[in-house]
This record gives sequence, structure tokens and C-alpha cells, in this order.
Amino acid sequence: MLTISKKGKNMPESPIRKLAPYADIAIEKGLKVYHLNIGQPDIKTPEKALAAIRNFDGDIIEYSPSAGYESYRRKLATLYQSQDVNVNFEDILITTGGSEALLFALAAITDPGDEIIIPEPFYANYNAFATSTGATIVPLTSSIESGFALPSFDTIDDLITPKTKAILICNPGNPTGYLYSEKEMLQLATLVKKYNLFLIADEVYREFTYDGDVHHSVMNLKDVEPNVIMIDSVSKRYSMCGARIGCLVSKNKEIIATVLKFAQARLSPPTIEQIACEAAIDTADGYFEKVVDEYRQRRNTLITELDKIEGLVVTKPKGAFYCIVQLPIDDAEHFAKWLLESYDYNGETVMVAPASGFYSTPGMGMNQIRIAYVLDREELKKAVTVLKEALLVYTKK
Amino acid sequence: MLTISKKGKNMPESPIRKLAPYADIAIEKGLKVYHLNIGQPDIKTPEKALAAIRNFDGDIIEYSPSAGYESYRRKLATLYQSQDVNVNFEDILITTGGSEALLFALAAITDPGDEIIIPEPFYANYNAFATSTGATIVPLTSSIESGFALPSFDTIDDLITPKTKAILICNPGNPTGYLYSEKEMLQLATLVKKYNLFLIADEVYREFTYDGDVHHSVMNLKDVEPNVIMIDSVSKRYSMCGARIGCLVSKNKEIIATVLKFAQARLSPPTIEQIACEAAIDTADGYFEKVVDEYRQRRNTLITELDKIEGLVVTKPKGAFYCIVQLPIDDAEHFAKWLLESYDYNGETVMVAPASGFYSTPGMGMNQIRIAYVLDREELKKAVTVLKEALLVYTKK
Repeated sequence: MLTISKKGKNMPESPIRKLAPYADIAIEKGLKVYHLNIGQPDIKTPEKALAAIRNFDGDIIEYSPSAGYESYRRKLATLYQSQDVNVNFEDILITTGGSEALLFALAAITDPGDEIIIPEPFYANYNAFATSTGATIVPLTSSIESGFALPSFDTIDDLITPKTKAILICNPGNPTGYLYSEKEMLQLATLVKKYNLFLIADEVYREFTYDGDVHHSVMNLKDVEPNVIMIDSVSKRYSMCGARIGCLVSKNKEIIATVLKFAQARLSPPTIEQIACEAAIDTADGYFEKVVDEYRQRRNTLITELDKIEGLVVTKPKGAFYCIVQLPIDDAEHFAKWLLESYDYNGETVMVAPASGFYSTPGMGMNQIRIAYVLDREELKKAVTVLKEALLVYTKK
Repeated sequence: MLTISKKGKNMPESPIRKLAPYADIAIEKGLKVYHLNIGQPDIKTPEKALAAIRNFDGDIIEYSPSAGYESYRRKLATLYQSQDVNVNFEDILITTGGSEALLFALAAITDPGDEIIIPEPFYANYNAFATSTGATIVPLTSSIESGFALPSFDTIDDLITPKTKAILICNPGNPTGYLYSEKEMLQLATLVKKYNLFLIADEVYREFTYDGDVHHSVMNLKDVEPNVIMIDSVSKRYSMCGARIGCLVSKNKEIIATVLKFAQARLSPPTIEQIACEAAIDTADGYFEKVVDEYRQRRNTLITELDKIEGLVVTKPKGAFYCIVQLPIDDAEHFAKWLLESYDYNGETVMVAPASGFYSTPGMGMNQIRIAYVLDREELKKAVTVLKEALLVYTKK
């Protein structure tokens, strides 16, 4: 029969992109739409990366090695070492975005039916990666009331079954902005050691922490080196989302050898963008200081403004550039559509991501949205004003 | 347990890349190695593509849409229309290489255990894509004696089971250089219509046909439009293997909608390389005429030289730039390693791809190799001389 596969049917639609047709309608009506829904930063890509693209002087765009250019892997290892993460270039495979690194990690360690424990709310595409590899996500619910802290050791322990293959965290977290403490990281290390599980950490926002809070990389956990897989990407570090260059890092040689087989099957990561990424590593530290300070100020503006809205719950994020916001409504998806379809405040409206798509437990997050603070402060202020006025109208209906 | 998944263990190693360590040894010894094993062309990328890269004037490398830039999809549709392939931009999704298009196609239509019939020998990575999606490849053996023509209708009919989801062909073929006739394409259309199967055609070498032979695109088959999925790539068309830009084309809207969900999960194809591909479409026809003529001459040189070797069997390929060569030996993999490890002719040796990796039936192709004619004619002549002399020594051992 000419039928779509079960996994094809079960592939979730992106919660970030599924409201796009409604946004198109709002824009066609001539409304200004503040995009609080997406993670595309407005920060400029480092000049060194752009210059490397403009100065490309090859005359053939050739395959790169399946593991990525060795020169880039070596520079990346040096970058990590400068951040006190002790890795060698042989522990690093370059992937087509952090997305491919995650897919490869799941494919290398899970067969259909194997379980992965993930604190929820989590990055929505983890659902898609699990569906496409056949893994089952076991959600570990964290709550907005506790600021999305890691639940207790016993709570996690209870979720572990003979089918559990790994715990996957996003640190700092998308969509929560949560930054795991050293104590929490040690707790995770104890757990994966006890049950011999993999610990995958998606650290694509590793540079984005605020107010002196320190990011604790999974690569620095002692005594669990073979258990650990780190996922990284240049998308946010260098504002190069479109480059599609990420990496998978592990001290486990069997993992690296297995992932390399998946990497060989797709031949290589993009050549030109890899050259740009290698050049980007020479970007002066001042770039990050400015970028991180800009996000810190945006976060402060956002939280200050949100706190003025009655009935709204939000925790100040410690990292990344997202937060989960609980609204005094019942159905955030309906509200998000209504904002685009039926509302405007002086010709303006906002687009937000309903949070239910970031949970895998049915019914969770129905009254929550995710906000990405990737707009400048003035725009953020205006966007929150629109949100505040909209809530007054919506909750009176 | 800290164990690799079954699919990770079963992932085949690339037959093209697995001899690389032996080649490194030969090169370290100071030998010149003729690379007949790989499909990295030495043809220059069109100037328009390179200029688009050098002229990139954005200051952020942003995500592109998950389906690829609409402007590129529209230009690609125009290119296909100019080749009498009637498609609209909405029938096209831009992918990260033809590899990703194939993976998405298999993921959209197969669940673990579903069967795909593929004429063998076939592009070795089909094995890897099947392993990673869980599909089972049912090989349809074609023979060197019949020039790798499609086996009879009844032979294929006999392979079809309730689990069969698709027939996958590569046209023109890698590794055979075989070009399917119109009659064979109609035979495939009749079969997929009869059993309601998908027909996937990997047409990444569609421009590479010689001596006036015409390529019959799967998109032009009548009455089976919903069954058909075409895979394409810029890798060979514009000698842009490293760009990792391909596409999936289908008139089946359910397929496009399903594949788009997989595409959304990985966010987007590379931005800069897509811009280069869009510019490449304006390349004048003269570029292809020159390139195709160059390959035609290389093929003629290669076949003329190979025909001088006693006991060797080869069919003149009608398309792409590969051929399967049967040698008067028992174990081509042993021979290929020996060439790199233990042989040289005046300080030179050759690297070839053992053909067994292009078959899925165990024991097939043991005395065959694949040759890629991506070197210039003088180099090809020298390489075949080395091969001839090596066979004299090897067969006397």
C-alpha cells in the first residue's frame, strides 16, 4: 500500500513553526508582529567567520572528511581546553548542526523501544529525534514553582527501567533557561554510574550564563567519562544558526567509532560553513562579553516587564535566552492563535510558542508559553506591553 | 548497560573509505596513489556559485526555511522544467545533500521490517540508510554479463511481499554506470502501479549521459505520480560535493508534508551553500557540455585501456562516472589492500573500491571492483597501466 510510515505519521509538528500560517495572516493584514517565538538571534556573526566566507579561494567545493576537517577539530579542542574542558580532537566529530549530533547519539545508543529520560519541559525537537530513531522518551517533570530544578534523586531513580539507555539534559536549558548546579550534575553522575547509563548533555548554550553563574560541563564529571556525550553547535555561540555546524564530543571510543559510521553514510558536513567556523574560533573574547551582556540586559528587561503583569508566573532564567511563562489562561495555544488572528494593540501583536509542545506528558504546560528574548530591549518592552494588554482583553472575554 | 545499539553495531563501514588507512601507509612510504576509489570530481565548481559565496554580504548567517529558500526551490523547478520535467516549487524540498533526501524518503515510507527492493550492485550507503531507518533491503541482483540491465518483470514480481514498500533505483547508476531504458522505466511503473508501491529514483547523475543516450526521469512516468519520489543533489551537477545541498521531489502531497516534518526537526539546510546553489543555476549550458564531454572522453580512455587487460570484464557505462570491473582474481578486497600495502610500479600504485560492499547478497562481487573515472585522461592511462602490471604480479603469486 502507498502509505506513510507509522513514524512518519507520528512525527510531531514543530510547536515553534506550526503557528507560522497565522503569523502570515497577521502580517498580510499589515500588523507588526513581535517574534517572541523563535531562537534566531539578531546578534551579528563574528567578522572573522564572514571574512573566511568572502575570502574562500578554492575552485572546487569538495567533500570534507566525514568526521569534519581535522584542523577545525583541533582548534575546537583548543577552545574547549581554554574553557577547562579537557578534550582531544579525536574525541570530537563535526556534525551538520547540533540536531544531527543528537540524532547520531540517539541512533548509536538506542534501538526501537529503548528509553531516554529527559527533564521536561524540553527542546521540542527531542520528540522528533526520538520518533525518527524509535526511542521512547520518559519525561521527568520539573515544575515552574521550583524554577525547573532537577527533581530529587529518588524521583529519577524510580523512572529507571531495564530499557533505560540514557538521561538527556539541556544545560543551560531551552526552553527553561535553567542552569544545572554542580550538585545536580554530581547527582546525575551518581545515577548514570549506578545504572551504567549514558548521560547526554546538550550544551549549545554553554557560553550563555549570567550574573556570574557558572556552567558545569558534563565533560568535567569525574569517573563517568565513558558514559558522557556532549552535544554542541556554533548556531548560538557565533550567531551562525544557518551554518548547520555542530559537534558530538565523547571520551568513549566505541561511541565515536559508531557515530563515525553514521557520519560516513551522510558523507560530510558542509565545507564552506566549516571553514567559517574554524575562522570564528579566533574571535576575541570581547565578542562574547558584549553578546552575553546584551542578553543579560534583555533578560532583565523582559523579566521586569513581565513581573508587571498580574497572574503571570516566571522564573528569572540563569542561562540561554528563553523562559517559560505561565499565564492566567487555560489554553495557551488558543491564546497564541488568537493573538495572531483576532487581536492587535495599535496595529501590533506578538507571536509566542505555546509550551505544551515542550512537554511529553499530555496536558502539561497548557497555560504556559515559551518566550525567546532575542529582540532588543525596546522591542521587548513593546512586545510585553502588547502581551499585557492582550491578556486584559482575552481574560475578560 | 552502557552498550551500543544493535543498529549502531550493524551500521556498515563505507567500502569506499575503509581502505583509507592503507592508502595513508602507501602515501607515507612516498608512493603516488591514483585514487580510482572515490567520487570526488576534479571539475571546477561554476564561477557563479563561487562568486555568490565571495559576495555574501549578510552580517548574520541565519536559519533558512526548513523546506529551503523558496527562491531556490522556484529556480530549481524552472531548471527541471527546462529539462522537460514538469514540477512546481511546492513539489521540491531542499535537503542537506542527496543523502538526507534518501534518509527522509525511507523514514517517511518505512517502519522497521518494511522491505525496499533495490537492483544490486547499488550505492553502498543505501545499506547504511536502511540500517539506520530499520528498513530491510531486498536485493534484485543484476549481472555484469547483461551489463547490469534490469532483470525481468517476473523476477522483480517474485520479490514483492506484503512488506514491500518501494523499489529504489539509481539512474544513471552508481556503481554500474547503467542507464535505464524507457522500456525498463515503463516496466517499473507497471510494477509499482500493480502493487501500489513507491518508486524512488536517485537521479543525482541525471546530467551525466553519453553518446546521445537519453536519461528518463522517474518524474515523467505517467499515471504513477503519487508513487514517485525523485532524489537529486548539486554534488555532481556543479561539482559541489562539499555543499551538502540536495533535494527530494514528489507530486505526492502527503509525502512532501511528512518529509517536511523530518526537515523541520533538523531546522534547515545550510544557508551559504544554498545561496551558492541558487546562483549556480544561472550557469550557461556550455559548462555542462564541456563537463559531460570531458567525462565521455575519460570513460572512453578508461574502457579502451581496461580492454587491454586479459581476463578482465567491463561494460562501457552509459552514464554517471563509475564502472564495475571484474578481475581475474578471487578476492578483490585482498587485492585492493595488497595494492596499497605491498605493491608499487615505479613508485606508483592505485586505490580501488572492492565491489562486495555494493552488493547486499553475501558473496556477490567478490572478484569485482568499482572504478570512478574522475581523474584526467593521462592519469587514468597511468593508473590502468599500474593496475595491469599489478594484476600480472598478483595473479602469478
